[in-house]
Amino acid sequence: MRLVSFQRSDAASVEAGVLDDGSVIPVRQLVDIAHAVVDRDPPERLRSADPVTMEVLLDGFGEHQPLLEAALAEIDDSQGLSREDVYLHPPVPTPPSLRDFYAFEGHVSRSWKRRGEPVPDAWYEIPVFYFSNPAATYGPGQPVPRPNSTRALDFELEAAWIVGKRARDLDETEAENAIVGLTIMDDFSARDVQKQEMSVGLGPSKGKDFATALGPAIVTLDELPRTDEGHFDLTMEAYVDGERISQGNLDQLQYTIAEMTAHASRDTWLQPGDVMGTGTVGTGSTLDQGTEEWLEPGQTVRLEIEGLGTLENEIVDPGA
Amino acid sequence: MRLVSFQRSDAASVEAGVLDDGSVIPVRQLVDIAHAVVDRDPPERLRSADPVTMEVLLDGFGEHQPLLEAALAEIDDSQGLSREDVYLHPPVPTPPSLRDFYAFEGHVSRSWKRRGEPVPDAWYEIPVFYFSNPAATYGPGQPVPRPNSTRALDFELEAAWIVGKRARDLDETEAENAIVGLTIMDDFSARDVQKQEMSVGLGPSKGKDFATALGPAIVTLDELPRTDEGHFDLTMEAYVDGERISQGNLDQLQYTIAEMTAHASRDTWLQPGDVMGTGTVGTGSTLDQGTEEWLEPGQTVRLEIEGLGTLENEIVDPGA
Repeated sequence: MRLVSFQRSDAASVEAGVLDDGSVIPVRQLVDIAHAVVDRDPPERLRSADPVTMEVLLDGFGEHQPLLEAALAEIDDSQGLSREDVYLHPPVPTPPSLRDFYAFEGHVSRSWKRRGEPVPDAWYEIPVFYFSNPAATYGPGQPVPRPNSTRALDFELEAAWIVGKRARDLDETEAENAIVGLTIMDDFSARDVQKQEMSVGLGPSKGKDFATALGPAIVTLDELPRTDEGHFDLTMEAYVDGERISQGNLDQLQYTIAEMTAHASRDTWLQPGDVMGTGTVGTGSTLDQGTEEWLEPGQTVRLEIEGLGTLENEIVDPGA
Repeated sequence: MRLVSFQRSDAASVEAGVLDDGSVIPVRQLVDIAHAVVDRDPPERLRSADPVTMEVLLDGFGEHQPLLEAALAEIDDSQGLSREDVYLHPPVPTPPSLRDFYAFEGHVSRSWKRRGEPVPDAWYEIPVFYFSNPAATYGPGQPVPRPNSTRALDFELEAAWIVGKRARDLDETEAENAIVGLTIMDDFSARDVQKQEMSVGLGPSKGKDFATALGPAIVTLDELPRTDEGHFDLTMEAYVDGERISQGNLDQLQYTIAEMTAHASRDTWLQPGDVMGTGTVGTGSTLDQGTEEWLEPGQTVRLEIEGLGTLENEIVDPGA
């Protein structure tokens, strides 16, 4: 199942939908079908929500998914909205929190090599992450302004996953069950800003707080192929102005997303809608390429992950 | 004006109130008085909210404050709830984001001295911060579980300030006007966890994501004394089991809170309810004391900041 947040051309509100071939079926409609036709009773919280936002849908998604599936079996494509008639937002427009891990060894070892040091032992012991800004998400196709403060704007090719319940102290199996699905993430970064602030030792903040693109859809885990080690076997590619810059595979992660989710949940609460990024795949940024060909207004970054679709954003002048 | 988030003993919901001597006056009541008695018209968003949460109150607080003041002039203390009859939550129970700066030179220089290095130049050039977890706030008097993962639990004596509007790219004057007020913050930290993860270079995350105590109230800036440089002249003290461990003054900040807010807003959105901490005052943690007398279940940390009140939390066993 592919979940999106969308806006109708004549509406002010953003609602949750299911992407079904070329059409978007509002979750509101599926809940009504499940209530009226299918022998299941949607929870009151879903039935009374109008519109049904992704925030509402994700809170207890494990119980909601079978309802949506049953309702989908009752309808045909022609009952949805055409994808051309709706505007897609980031699938989770305002996550309660945004974590970004650092879990591809290629990217990490290259970062430390630039400093002339080996990868720290701790990287092999625990899946390290930082918290980033949940208030600067961009959806598929949405233009991303280049911050005035940078002349070294970079993209980062990542996958992200979304939490579907309030939970803490999860073991790996529980963590696996708490994850709704995967989407593509472009963690735009200002390398000059980041370099200056990271010298102080608290990690990145202004270097990464201005734009995180997410989308186009959350693809539920059951639709995606796995390796024996529990990784997802999905090729990852980044293009700038149509030229392929990076390629990798999501199975190159040092830790599974279940392991990283369990780590994040230790001694604290996860919230439904929390977004977690994998970190950049081995060659997945200009910094990793070593070219210093930073992004300029007018250029377009397109990220593709097998099974997850395409996430494309044009860089624009902030005054535009 | 002193703003609190409170819960009545017979209610499930948390609402905003004004602390007036020994009593708590629900903002709901003040909005009704302003509507009925005072010649002002509260915005529809405030009038229709039931209860009026801190989230609703802070969104456009600059327009709400004069309404509350006019209504307060119409009533006497006896019309409020007794403070003993309500349970105080963190003034902002779930901030949209939580930033923590690193702006007291005493704490910073001691951190770098332990590594045998000088304070990086960048610290003197920009106010550096990290994003932390907004889903682990604790209120005044609320017990804080010691995480199972640490045997080096520490407190951090800080002040925090709260944003009262959606805004970006603020200059210092605009930033000053966007700040609602100050409260006390205890950024509980697991020093062993933090040390391991920070060696990877992304800053702290699990070392600080389990508990941030805030409270007891947001005190609006107009009630607090300033220095000529724009700092707040307020003594800060920390006590563990009644013994004074730390003392400092909020005027020792390297940057004013307006400067830090302007920095945070550069090229990105701030949201109403965003919380920003100053970082630890010079001597304001066990780490700064160098004693390694880490907090144990059964101990109580009490932070006092002149004009802001007292924030006290007992450390408990997570199984308790």
